[in-house]
Amino acid sequence: MSVMWTVKVVGLGVVAFSLSVELLWRLLRRLKPPKTLNEVLFFPSEVACMEHIFSPASPNSCCCPLPHGVETSFTRLLRFILSASSSLDLCLFSFSNMDLCRAVLYLYRRKITVRVLVDKEYSVITGSQVGALRKAGICVRNVGRYVHMHHKFALVDGRRLITGSLNWTLAAVQCNSENVLVTEEPRLVQPFVGEFCRLWAANDPSQNGPFSDQNVAHN
Amino acid sequence: MSVMWTVKVVGLGVVAFSLSVELLWRLLRRLKPPKTLNEVLFFPSEVACMEHIFSPASPNSCCCPLPHGVETSFTRLLRFILSASSSLDLCLFSFSNMDLCRAVLYLYRRKITVRVLVDKEYSVITGSQVGALRKAGICVRNVGRYVHMHHKFALVDGRRLITGSLNWTLAAVQCNSENVLVTEEPRLVQPFVGEFCRLWAANDPSQNGPFSDQNVAHN
Repeated sequence: MSVMWTVKVVGLGVVAFSLSVELLWRLLRRLKPPKTLNEVLFFPSEVACMEHIFSPASPNSCCCPLPHGVETSFTRLLRFILSASSSLDLCLFSFSNMDLCRAVLYLYRRKITVRVLVDKEYSVITGSQVGALRKAGICVRNVGRYVHMHHKFALVDGRRLITGSLNWTLAAVQCNSENVLVTEEPRLVQPFVGEFCRLWAANDPSQNGPFSDQNVAHN
Repeated sequence: MSVMWTVKVVGLGVVAFSLSVELLWRLLRRLKPPKTLNEVLFFPSEVACMEHIFSPASPNSCCCPLPHGVETSFTRLLRFILSASSSLDLCLFSFSNMDLCRAVLYLYRRKITVRVLVDKEYSVITGSQVGALRKAGICVRNVGRYVHMHHKFALVDGRRLITGSLNWTLAAVQCNSENVLVTEEPRLVQPFVGEFCRLWAANDPSQNGPFSDQNVAHN
């Protein structure tokens, strides 16, 4: 009888131990957070044809003299923007880059909600694409309360932030030394979501006068 | 005998269970990574006296008419820069803000290694503080290969990144709508460390001609 009990106790111990290890392993796997997107792109970007980004089904349809099918910092930036599945919020100092404008119009035509905040003064400079956005039906609001609304950020689906030193111009992409951060880290994304909402509400032309954004200083 | 064994088995089970819970708890506490610094500052910043940042021992020493002892986005930015304990690497498009210059000189006098990269054209504009840095003995290198070296980032001790849309000017701090990200996330910090080292080496005046930075396009 005593031997039988010893066998039972040892057996129970082995089962309990293996179950504990299994439980621990499963818990650890569930607790390990998925890797958050954090990426940095540097510019200037190599000059290349962007047609394969917009027409992936027929990548050889373009016969321009630029290199084709090349992956650059700029193609990566375009892909991040085009990854939007529900919304795209833009807050831009200047916007004259035609490929970036094409990407925004492409999303808008695919029923993605697009909202654009621009610096009032820079929205009307030569080459600005803001007129093309408005013509297509996209809601664009001017920010005129500051000397410059100098942000250059995009929020993709409200959870992916694209921001940095890069203005959305051709010169910035091809000629300047610039950076763009792409992140889904909530502690970086959420403040930008808040800032966009604040500026969007403060610059609603139907609700406010031209200089209604009173709380301009952050402390 | 059988009752005794039952008591022993139940007792052993209770001990094994409590030990497992204890072990699991300790493991989870050790596995939980420390919270990485991720913070966003927005500008314009409230205009206030900065004396308490530089002279914390005598915060009431200044009698200027500005509000005193106020914590703003700008005081927070200054504190992040002044937190350097070994090195400060700056890569700046324009640098005319006198408080930021004072912070850099303050660190340099306290034997912090300071390296500065600036845009060649903008380093000599009216109000630029680059001359004051050079005069103090800080090593400053011009970047002249691009239309603009448009970065505006700082690396504190090689592990804390400060970057965003904010140029280091008074107008940007007090008059513009701007953002600054402060992060210690390695996947964001390390690419900037690499970019700084690349630009620093490529613009060494003793090694290279004025336009030696050949690999200018990123792909």
